[in-house]
Amino acid sequence: MENFGGKKECAYEKENGVGNGGGVEIKKKWCFKANESISAASGITIRGTLGMLMGSRNSNDKRETIPLGHGDPSAFPCFRTSLIAEDAIVESLRSSKFNSYSPSVGLQPARSAVAEYLSCDLPYKLSAEDVFLTVGCIQSIEIVLSVLARPGANILLPRPGFPIYESRATFSNLEIRHFDLLPEKGWEVDLDAVKSLADENTVAMVMINPGNPCGNVLSYVHLKKMAETAKMLGILIIADEVYGHLTFGSNSFIPMGTFGSIAPVLTMGSISKRWLVPGWRLGWITVNDPNGYLKDAKIVDSIIGYANITTDPATFIQAAVPKILKETPEDFFENTRSILRESAEIIYDELDEIDCIYCPHKPDGSMFVMIDTSLLEDIIDDIDFCTKLAKEESVIVLPGICVGLKNWLRITFAIEPSRLQDGLRRMKDFCQRHAKKL
Amino acid sequence: MENFGGKKECAYEKENGVGNGGGVEIKKKWCFKANESISAASGITIRGTLGMLMGSRNSNDKRETIPLGHGDPSAFPCFRTSLIAEDAIVESLRSSKFNSYSPSVGLQPARSAVAEYLSCDLPYKLSAEDVFLTVGCIQSIEIVLSVLARPGANILLPRPGFPIYESRATFSNLEIRHFDLLPEKGWEVDLDAVKSLADENTVAMVMINPGNPCGNVLSYVHLKKMAETAKMLGILIIADEVYGHLTFGSNSFIPMGTFGSIAPVLTMGSISKRWLVPGWRLGWITVNDPNGYLKDAKIVDSIIGYANITTDPATFIQAAVPKILKETPEDFFENTRSILRESAEIIYDELDEIDCIYCPHKPDGSMFVMIDTSLLEDIIDDIDFCTKLAKEESVIVLPGICVGLKNWLRITFAIEPSRLQDGLRRMKDFCQRHAKKL
Repeated sequence: MENFGGKKECAYEKENGVGNGGGVEIKKKWCFKANESISAASGITIRGTLGMLMGSRNSNDKRETIPLGHGDPSAFPCFRTSLIAEDAIVESLRSSKFNSYSPSVGLQPARSAVAEYLSCDLPYKLSAEDVFLTVGCIQSIEIVLSVLARPGANILLPRPGFPIYESRATFSNLEIRHFDLLPEKGWEVDLDAVKSLADENTVAMVMINPGNPCGNVLSYVHLKKMAETAKMLGILIIADEVYGHLTFGSNSFIPMGTFGSIAPVLTMGSISKRWLVPGWRLGWITVNDPNGYLKDAKIVDSIIGYANITTDPATFIQAAVPKILKETPEDFFENTRSILRESAEIIYDELDEIDCIYCPHKPDGSMFVMIDTSLLEDIIDDIDFCTKLAKEESVIVLPGICVGLKNWLRITFAIEPSRLQDGLRRMKDFCQRHAKKL
Repeated sequence: MENFGGKKECAYEKENGVGNGGGVEIKKKWCFKANESISAASGITIRGTLGMLMGSRNSNDKRETIPLGHGDPSAFPCFRTSLIAEDAIVESLRSSKFNSYSPSVGLQPARSAVAEYLSCDLPYKLSAEDVFLTVGCIQSIEIVLSVLARPGANILLPRPGFPIYESRATFSNLEIRHFDLLPEKGWEVDLDAVKSLADENTVAMVMINPGNPCGNVLSYVHLKKMAETAKMLGILIIADEVYGHLTFGSNSFIPMGTFGSIAPVLTMGSISKRWLVPGWRLGWITVNDPNGYLKDAKIVDSIIGYANITTDPATFIQAAVPKILKETPEDFFENTRSILRESAEIIYDELDEIDCIYCPHKPDGSMFVMIDTSLLEDIIDDIDFCTKLAKEESVIVLPGICVGLKNWLRITFAIEPSRLQDGLRRMKDFCQRHAKKL
């Protein structure tokens, strides 16, 4: 072995064994090892937990598994996407005009179409330059948190929330501070907590509306208060509106960008949920900031800079966006809302009949509800609840710990109503079986 | 304004002006600012430079622009993808079975198909578990460099190379050390430089074969030497084989994984180049490591961990992968190779006739050639050359500085042969006009 002035002694210890045996290979010492910040960032994930629960099922149970853990209705026939959307993709693919790389911020007609689509609900007009296309909202989160993660910065995240924020903030060394959502106030933000958590290194607060995991829809009045709080604190709002327009209660959907002139807002959205196509991976970041504060602070330049060193949504999918946004008929959306409304009624009523379950808020948006459980015997915590439920009833629900709220559960109701009813009946049996004998 | 114990004084200076004028708004002080490591990482990019050159054209020049700067043949009719591939995508979309999220590491049948496809050229079999699907090779680079970027680590990158490696390494605080590719040796790696650069914190060396930007194809003997060098240094090889099989000279394509039992190899590939669909954003990382060193060092776990906190390729595109890989007819590939072979001949012969241009190596792979220019008057450097060429001749070529080699140029020949000839004629006129009067 060549000698490099001792610099590279780590490379080997010895190639071959010595002594009697000969030929005994001694393990080489390689210089690479994994980046530990990734294992720290990807600890508890929704996908990982659901996979574990699926593995906990009893293979002798011949009943169909009822998946109430994920947030992906597209697997069920009643939630098939619009044919218009499918046609738009096929058309752009068959044109063979969109096999090339796209501009890193997205195709111009698609950016324009998103700007136009979102401007309908805003008191000012967005332009194409305010829109950046992404590979779904996961990439939107990745980009926004990377851009904001200057050394020493901290970010305010909701509890309960969506764990990719925690993962990406951890990965980017962005300090996390949690504020609570208040179940007794329809999961509104605890704004006093927000104020007391913020300091001069706080850069942003994250909100998810309509709510994941809480299934709530925030009111105009509360949203305005949030904007005023952000302004007072000098922070921006990251508005995760991936469930935008999926509302079916009394509060209609108000985009946070409505208050962009009070405090700057980076909105994240996608076609995943409203069009029921999360697997198409097409999302966006929009800059809702008529005063230009984000531009002044170079945040917009930095989003463009990050877009230059990361990947893009498939070009032919981008090319289909104008048609998807403009031509999907209203009755498609109404149909989805109506199934979700029915499912929300079912789940709220059925849960109400289970003694040891407390559901503080009837869902009026998104596709989730959070419930608290108590008075159960032999159940240590939420993970134990979900593991035993999977084993005994082949029903999958998400432990609250995955969204930051230990001993709560997140249940999805965006599945075929008949299967939902079946799943809730099984849950009731489970709870009755495990109820504390008083 | 509420007072938070002085903690949040940064938020405002003053909302309104004081004194006589009244109502004069004093600019608020917002707490957010951009992450500077992004601007450091995304400084000179190929896309940015090409955009600047496009803007330098003379709008009075009515001739068609000849784009020899990019690496994307899919815009030209002679490089249309196989109908089989298009059909496969339409079929998976129309099935409506693949609108859902995919597993974070990719759909199992697609991973199996990639493993099978790559195993044909290897002395051992890959399994589906060795394959991770990505949103094109850009995301493969992002994942691999993030995984390897433990504090203090450094990585060896080729010069010239592909600048996304520099960007992502910079963004991840992975120290960069450059080794040269040697033009007089057919752009082989300067292995002595590799040895002298490496130390105990070196984790990997990157190679791109077939070569971007050099258009060379490395021999079996040289690849084996690289693997032996990596073994000696205790580092892994990152093999960028996005141009795999795009060869048309005497050296055929040998995947670096062939030598995975000497030193571990992470191979990056995609359907972008061989199928002429970079806009479809479907790539992969494969673990070529029959001895399991990468698994032992938790590198594989870390790739899975990162996949859990990043985005995925569109599910219906993944679902089309088995058909695309298995059913594309050989004559489709042969047709592409044959056009590239013809274009490589044209470019080499035409450049040979321009006095002030030196082309050290006739391209026999990928779709690029590197040339050196000299003896020009009024031309300061490569950027100046390209800017003036765009302005005077509406021909776009890439300044070598973008790929790490100042005063060289990278020229793409993957365009319609007739347009290539037109572009080269214009380049010859340009060089004659600017030749030093001796």
